[in-house]
Amino acid sequence: MKQIDHSAALWRQWMQRALQLALLADGLTSPNPLVGAVVLNQEGKIIGEGFHAGAGHPHAEVLALSQAGIRAKGGTLLVTLEPCCHYGRTPPCTEAILQSEISRVVIALEDPDPRVAGGGIARLRDAGLEVITGVLEEEAAFQNRAFIFRVKNGRPWGILKWAMSLDGRTGLPNGESKWITGEKARNWVHILRSKCDAVIVGSGTVRTDNPLLTSRGLCNPEPLRVVLTSSLNLPSEAMLWDTTIAKTLVAYGPHALKNKINQKPNGPDYLELNSTNPIDLLNALARKDCNQVLWECGAALASNAIKDGCVQELAIFIAPKLLGGNTAMTPLASLGFTSIEESLILRKASIKRIDQDWLLKMLVPTEKPGH
Amino acid sequence: MKQIDHSAALWRQWMQRALQLALLADGLTSPNPLVGAVVLNQEGKIIGEGFHAGAGHPHAEVLALSQAGIRAKGGTLLVTLEPCCHYGRTPPCTEAILQSEISRVVIALEDPDPRVAGGGIARLRDAGLEVITGVLEEEAAFQNRAFIFRVKNGRPWGILKWAMSLDGRTGLPNGESKWITGEKARNWVHILRSKCDAVIVGSGTVRTDNPLLTSRGLCNPEPLRVVLTSSLNLPSEAMLWDTTIAKTLVAYGPHALKNKINQKPNGPDYLELNSTNPIDLLNALARKDCNQVLWECGAALASNAIKDGCVQELAIFIAPKLLGGNTAMTPLASLGFTSIEESLILRKASIKRIDQDWLLKMLVPTEKPGH
Repeated sequence: MKQIDHSAALWRQWMQRALQLALLADGLTSPNPLVGAVVLNQEGKIIGEGFHAGAGHPHAEVLALSQAGIRAKGGTLLVTLEPCCHYGRTPPCTEAILQSEISRVVIALEDPDPRVAGGGIARLRDAGLEVITGVLEEEAAFQNRAFIFRVKNGRPWGILKWAMSLDGRTGLPNGESKWITGEKARNWVHILRSKCDAVIVGSGTVRTDNPLLTSRGLCNPEPLRVVLTSSLNLPSEAMLWDTTIAKTLVAYGPHALKNKINQKPNGPDYLELNSTNPIDLLNALARKDCNQVLWECGAALASNAIKDGCVQELAIFIAPKLLGGNTAMTPLASLGFTSIEESLILRKASIKRIDQDWLLKMLVPTEKPGH
Repeated sequence: MKQIDHSAALWRQWMQRALQLALLADGLTSPNPLVGAVVLNQEGKIIGEGFHAGAGHPHAEVLALSQAGIRAKGGTLLVTLEPCCHYGRTPPCTEAILQSEISRVVIALEDPDPRVAGGGIARLRDAGLEVITGVLEEEAAFQNRAFIFRVKNGRPWGILKWAMSLDGRTGLPNGESKWITGEKARNWVHILRSKCDAVIVGSGTVRTDNPLLTSRGLCNPEPLRVVLTSSLNLPSEAMLWDTTIAKTLVAYGPHALKNKINQKPNGPDYLELNSTNPIDLLNALARKDCNQVLWECGAALASNAIKDGCVQELAIFIAPKLLGGNTAMTPLASLGFTSIEESLILRKASIKRIDQDWLLKMLVPTEKPGH
């Protein structure tokens, strides 16, 4: 019988495949993580694949093992996240693994969920299986950054998106902003929305742009559309008030004019917050199963979200245009900095051309600015 | 005897070499163009190379032919710009070519200088030489875009440079702007200055930044440093007032307080303009042999330069930082646009990473905005 090559390179190669599988459900699994799994038989040939398609659906390991069937005996399971050892909406994966009589489990990342947190690994080792951990750990952690962040911090991972001209303007002095970027860049925003559980704007954006904020059908259900308002002083007509395509949540602060609430069939839901601080909204959205939210708001709310530590990632479109304007709109308002040394330096920057525009993506440091 | 391959591909290959040679004097030839030349013998082997090192120095063709000597007889001269046929600071190149008994001349671009403008080509053809034109014409025109623009428009090619944060800020609300970009990006600006004949700022930049504006010794002489001021109300102390390293020109408008002029040894030169419109300054700088100037000014002057058609190219540094600030400095002031359709769409955009920063380069449409 041919021996499996136990080298780390081989595990990395199959773990890469498991990560690809996990990504097939990108944007669909919240509040659960993305998980992919691959089963190899004793000879090292692939005999099963699976990914977690979303809460309530079977876990990736269970799908891959059921595909492999009795051929899994003595084989290897590769999985991007530590198998669970608790009863949630589905039975613990550790038990399915033990039943399959698989000999070895290769895991990318320990599950930060306190109900697992190494317990799955311990259960498998105790049962006599060989368990290898940390294979493509960094890649797996990056893929599940939203889930991990929500588990650790109790609020969803925030992405802030804006589109601006080369001179840093998000609109003309008269408020006109359609369209700064080209069609392909705007399509990319629809894709980005489809990966998010909620899309957030302030009342100013509702008034000025009257946006639809959907993924244009790229995901089903559409992400929750959220309007954060301190006053509830909102336009009576807006695309967001028609919730036949996508749900809308109006989140308001304690000083809002509650007589403005207009409950009607197919209208938005309402939620009172302790404050209109971005962090209070995100804590509430975590309780609504959001792992990842998209800020598509104006300068004032965007700056507050950054200052509140509610933005972990930026997606900035730059169009090769000059708009100018002494009073023209800019992407951010004050962050309170008084020296360049204080300014927020971004990490893991990358750029790509999307038709005539550029998309810059990067991560915001985990420390709050100025702290 | 081996026959030369007459194919266009061969000429393009050698013309590429001639263009490389021309570039060796980038920034040094004004008001003259960049020119490179290669001489091949009858067998197609290279026997001479030359480039124009600057006004008063021999022309590229003459250098390449003198290197080739009598071996040039029956050979081919490749030159990036049409040979001159007039007596300037040096005798006409057409006569040197005829004396060399070369058989064929391959030219990239016709010289737009009205003293040449096809006259050189005609002279060579009339004398019985084979003349091939238009080989890498577009590349040659791009290399000499500053010279061509100045000959056609009577004013130098303008490059506008700024450095900004990802949120489009050139400084903090308190005016602090040192440093937005990293050291390598700032070194690149020194290289850019070394390719320009003048570097222009307004009085505000002198007051706020007190810049040195040199290439830090990358070229000799340093580019002319120009301050455009309507009032002559300038700080009494500034790095630009010491002209031992580089010349400084203070250009002022008709309403300036002329009693503020402070003529002293090693001090700046003064020049009265009909107006402080950017175009009046550039017309004056063309008369001072400038082919290419660099605008390193604040938002108000930069916007005026764009509106006056005095900016043909942009070099924009973007640092992966967020500065914020309700009143923070932005790269441009009003361009007078009232709809996105009017906005200035840039051409030939390119991007490169310089350490942690990005450099975006592009061309401004030749039409004035809104015209």
